[in-house]
Amino acid sequence: MKKINKIAFIGAGLINSSLARDLKKTDFYKISSVYSRSKKTRNILRKLKIIDEVEDTYSKAVCNADLIVIGVPVDAFSSVISKISSYLKKGAIITDVGSVKNSIIKSSSRKIPKGVHFIPGHPIAGTEHSGPAAGFEGLFKNGFCILTPNKNVNKSSLEIVTKMWNLTGMKVDIMDPDYHDIVLAITSHIPHIIAYSIVGTVSNLEKSLKTEVIKYAASGFKDFTRIAASDPVMWRDIMILNKKAILNMLSIFKKDLSILEQAIKKEDAKFLYNLFSKTRLIRKRITK
Amino acid sequence: MKKINKIAFIGAGLINSSLARDLKKTDFYKISSVYSRSKKTRNILRKLKIIDEVEDTYSKAVCNADLIVIGVPVDAFSSVISKISSYLKKGAIITDVGSVKNSIIKSSSRKIPKGVHFIPGHPIAGTEHSGPAAGFEGLFKNGFCILTPNKNVNKSSLEIVTKMWNLTGMKVDIMDPDYHDIVLAITSHIPHIIAYSIVGTVSNLEKSLKTEVIKYAASGFKDFTRIAASDPVMWRDIMILNKKAILNMLSIFKKDLSILEQAIKKEDAKFLYNLFSKTRLIRKRITK
Repeated sequence: MKKINKIAFIGAGLINSSLARDLKKTDFYKISSVYSRSKKTRNILRKLKIIDEVEDTYSKAVCNADLIVIGVPVDAFSSVISKISSYLKKGAIITDVGSVKNSIIKSSSRKIPKGVHFIPGHPIAGTEHSGPAAGFEGLFKNGFCILTPNKNVNKSSLEIVTKMWNLTGMKVDIMDPDYHDIVLAITSHIPHIIAYSIVGTVSNLEKSLKTEVIKYAASGFKDFTRIAASDPVMWRDIMILNKKAILNMLSIFKKDLSILEQAIKKEDAKFLYNLFSKTRLIRKRITK
Repeated sequence: MKKINKIAFIGAGLINSSLARDLKKTDFYKISSVYSRSKKTRNILRKLKIIDEVEDTYSKAVCNADLIVIGVPVDAFSSVISKISSYLKKGAIITDVGSVKNSIIKSSSRKIPKGVHFIPGHPIAGTEHSGPAAGFEGLFKNGFCILTPNKNVNKSSLEIVTKMWNLTGMKVDIMDPDYHDIVLAITSHIPHIIAYSIVGTVSNLEKSLKTEVIKYAASGFKDFTRIAASDPVMWRDIMILNKKAILNMLSIFKKDLSILEQAIKKEDAKFLYNLFSKTRLIRKRITK
């Protein structure tokens, strides 16, 4: 397997900073660098001491890097590639951690220089918090990372990226980018849309009712508020860049919700009982 | 304050069995009894040793009881009242733990004998698990219990029920039953409907996609499956008995969801960012 002398992180949010924390404890690389456009973030990173070199330009961060991990909101991905491409060394590997794969591959693949290997990735992990201080060791443990390389992928680059995620405790799955986007629309994007929508509905309630709802949130609503506290920029970009799969699933969900609404209207006890029993089985398959 | 010699539990699910566990450690009562119609549940209760007398008839359970706590699916409440009413002693207090208040008050208040005091209640607590073995000490700690007595309530009975919940670590709020049902439709019933609906949508997916969704559930969907694993009978009844408030809120939610859907369609980045930022503020108010 290729040796990684230098790893460069572009962006240092929850995911990249957690990854940096995990890798620091290993001998995966010799030296690490990070670029962040925000001075505040760079100062936090210097204090955290999880990455060796904190840089204020792309060129210094990626200079001589063997592996570049891009962790920026998905809409910014293609522009980051444009900004770093001329500084990349031959044989370098680029990977990312974005929640949408098809659109970032389409918008950036022609910008990636020949001899540079792109392995798109998506570690399925996160919390509702964001920024470098929100990261922590062990975030990825026992999770899955989906990689969506093209068919002619450089095997040894794929091995390196796989090894990196394995070192954090993740299993790695290879998937087609379109299929990734459909699966994630269902498991992640639709739940976020719904949570954002219902918490948005509550934030429009008149003041006294809103106060009561916040007070008694423990009865179900609280779980939605956790999801709806996720990073607004990241989720704005995901909604737009995966809109095809999202709108498709959303229309199926809305149809099913209307059927359930009708059953409540008609007091169809049998339908309700059957649906509410069926959903329990899905939970059992997840927690077993 | 009145002294409680005997407390009787009707039904021994998650809530009543957790309450019994908490009260057993106090000197709130001298003797406790429980009725369950299921032989299996009665056997579990005998092994748990959290209630003194496990009875197979309503009459034995409520005989001489000073306080009766009814913890059955809300649709069964009125029929339980019919079955116990002739065995109740004068001055006895009835309370309950149901998630819907207006309809159970309407359907049962004329069945409650004169001289028996009814204090409808709803401790805001629970997990997705059900049954006596799922209960545990401390379930209610730091939560809220809403009581919805009528205006001519017997003060000393209200004090007793308030004290009981205080002993479990709950704060007690008094509320109008209709207002309770609106607040709970928003905080609890709508989140459950949505979670049941989306998990139902997933259970209708073709097999291979469903397998992937279950595998990568950690990215948001998992929270929904926890809510949608709640007791089907309990939730069937809640949906029907609080349908007015639920359908009303559901139509507001559906309208808001369609607005969000349109924003995604039009790639209205500003709208998305504003909504996703606003919802974060609600979370802050809940967790502060």
